[in-house]
Amino acid sequence: MRIFRSPANPIIVPGDVKPSRDDYEVVGVFNPAVARLEDEVVLLLRVAERPVATRPNVTVVPIYEHSHARIIEKEFFRDDPQNDFSDPRFVIRAGQKYLSSISHLRLARSKNGIDFEIDKTAAIQPAGIYEAFGVEDARITRIDDEYYVHYVAVCSSGVTTMLASTIDFTSFHRLGVIFCPDNKDVLIFPQRIAGRFYALHRPVSAEFTKRYEIWISESPDLRCWGNHRILCAPRADSWDAVKIGGGAPPFKTEYGWLEVYHGVDVDNRYCLGALLLDPDEPWKILARSDTPIFVPQADYEVAGFVQNVVFTCGLLCEKGRLKIYYGAADTCICYAEIELHDVIESLSLQGC
Amino acid sequence: MRIFRSPANPIIVPGDVKPSRDDYEVVGVFNPAVARLEDEVVLLLRVAERPVATRPNVTVVPIYEHSHARIIEKEFFRDDPQNDFSDPRFVIRAGQKYLSSISHLRLARSKNGIDFEIDKTAAIQPAGIYEAFGVEDARITRIDDEYYVHYVAVCSSGVTTMLASTIDFTSFHRLGVIFCPDNKDVLIFPQRIAGRFYALHRPVSAEFTKRYEIWISESPDLRCWGNHRILCAPRADSWDAVKIGGGAPPFKTEYGWLEVYHGVDVDNRYCLGALLLDPDEPWKILARSDTPIFVPQADYEVAGFVQNVVFTCGLLCEKGRLKIYYGAADTCICYAEIELHDVIESLSLQGC
Repeated sequence: MRIFRSPANPIIVPGDVKPSRDDYEVVGVFNPAVARLEDEVVLLLRVAERPVATRPNVTVVPIYEHSHARIIEKEFFRDDPQNDFSDPRFVIRAGQKYLSSISHLRLARSKNGIDFEIDKTAAIQPAGIYEAFGVEDARITRIDDEYYVHYVAVCSSGVTTMLASTIDFTSFHRLGVIFCPDNKDVLIFPQRIAGRFYALHRPVSAEFTKRYEIWISESPDLRCWGNHRILCAPRADSWDAVKIGGGAPPFKTEYGWLEVYHGVDVDNRYCLGALLLDPDEPWKILARSDTPIFVPQADYEVAGFVQNVVFTCGLLCEKGRLKIYYGAADTCICYAEIELHDVIESLSLQGC
Repeated sequence: MRIFRSPANPIIVPGDVKPSRDDYEVVGVFNPAVARLEDEVVLLLRVAERPVATRPNVTVVPIYEHSHARIIEKEFFRDDPQNDFSDPRFVIRAGQKYLSSISHLRLARSKNGIDFEIDKTAAIQPAGIYEAFGVEDARITRIDDEYYVHYVAVCSSGVTTMLASTIDFTSFHRLGVIFCPDNKDVLIFPQRIAGRFYALHRPVSAEFTKRYEIWISESPDLRCWGNHRILCAPRADSWDAVKIGGGAPPFKTEYGWLEVYHGVDVDNRYCLGALLLDPDEPWKILARSDTPIFVPQADYEVAGFVQNVVFTCGLLCEKGRLKIYYGAADTCICYAEIELHDVIESLSLQGC
């Protein structure tokens, strides 16, 4: 697969983003949602922040406390053997897991799709009990003149997906939890199919073995979802053997709905692949990447907060090219283009 | 709390139920859904079966295989140290958990509510990929002239809740998965509130700590659900400290919606308690049992397949009395009555 990485990569790094407080630092800016708004490309960046460390023996975890509508800090001593810091994303103590940073969503705008002007304050910041550990990994689906932002909300009760709508990316109308815990990687299709809305999502089951499968559901109104069905599962001995989840919202091609999704292999490498879904019955898979279309190889994809990660939450399909915005190594934002034709051809070879 | 246990208890035991195959045995009949159908009480029993053991060194696990539309048997050698039989409900091998029995739903009818005539074959049996490990713990909600059966479906992808409708309990119209994994204890309210349907449910989050909380959601059509909100959580140092989940579908009283739910304590004891919910805004709790209204005490509740369990999936509130059908010790079905007045009074004492 021919990947055209931008020579400007990474196009947004943590140092480009003003923290939301003077005593905080931005540790990651990644996994942006993308939409075209008139002559601009808009991104909703995931900005992960934490308090600036002032004491080397203490890790401070930020948590949004709804009852006081503010972020509180919880301290964990580094030398306390009850505190587990082995995964940099978490602090675990007595069976309770905390995130080591808190994320919000920040707007960025660009005329050329590469050079972005980044807002100084959050577009969507944690609010309410479901967002105590932050808001993450937004996706944007435009339906008619409305943009629907669906994003991950994290709290100790689990991982849910929230819906909000906007017409201007200035004010957002929050529409509540659309998928209950644990569920992320929700992607709403951009138009009704036979009168119904559809979404992909990724519930996590822990009951029998841990399962990370992509499901598809339908809705009359975008807020209530049902007729949940398994769409596809990880494949043993494959680039997507351990986990899969939706990436960018699906978009329509002459061949069907194209979904660029992520797969995780046994080495915890995050790649991108494609699913081609039936145009009229999107719960039917027409083709699926046997090999990834996008593999972490560049320095900024291989090394970072979490190594070997390319992860997309949005792309623009324009003039026959996929313009992919993606998080690299859970650290920064990059841009690459792939010919739609190349993706389709790679799928065609598998019997599409 | 004054509990009037039927002197006929247990009213249905495994020996009363004909297995669905000659080479199977019924190991439990419990957790029935209940409805009144004209002059009869109908129950949908959970019937748990397994192949009759013929070789002492082998445990045989039944699994419904959708592709062949039949139940297959998977063998586990008792002396293989890789097989874990420590919990009688499961067999675990190499991180994969199986159920040691497979359940279906069986209809039983009674004129007097105590003596039941039990069908010889299943009303709802495993069908489709979501029900490979069985169908369990039905609830029935009557809305207008339709009875909606919502029941737990179990497969290796997790625990979902399915919806089916019937008018006569003879034929059932399956309406698909209404809550995706892991989610059980779904209870649909028997009427619209301000034009919307409501349901309680119990998603399981494993992301931070294992959470077993009751949520409330709304729907325009019973099939698609959204605006998911946490209703209540387990309470430390209480009879419902570890897990809670809905029991019988809520019913309306002059004080609000009364929900009889189950709570699990640190000793894995399953008791019943009550929630009183606002009549117009059922996501608001007016009162909650500080002490259980029903504790396992009778022999058949204390000893059985799982000890110390009373678990209800349905009750009839008639003439000021709660007529509770319940599973005892995951083994048999019992009947008890409680005065509605007593339940309300116990809640009133807590500031209702």
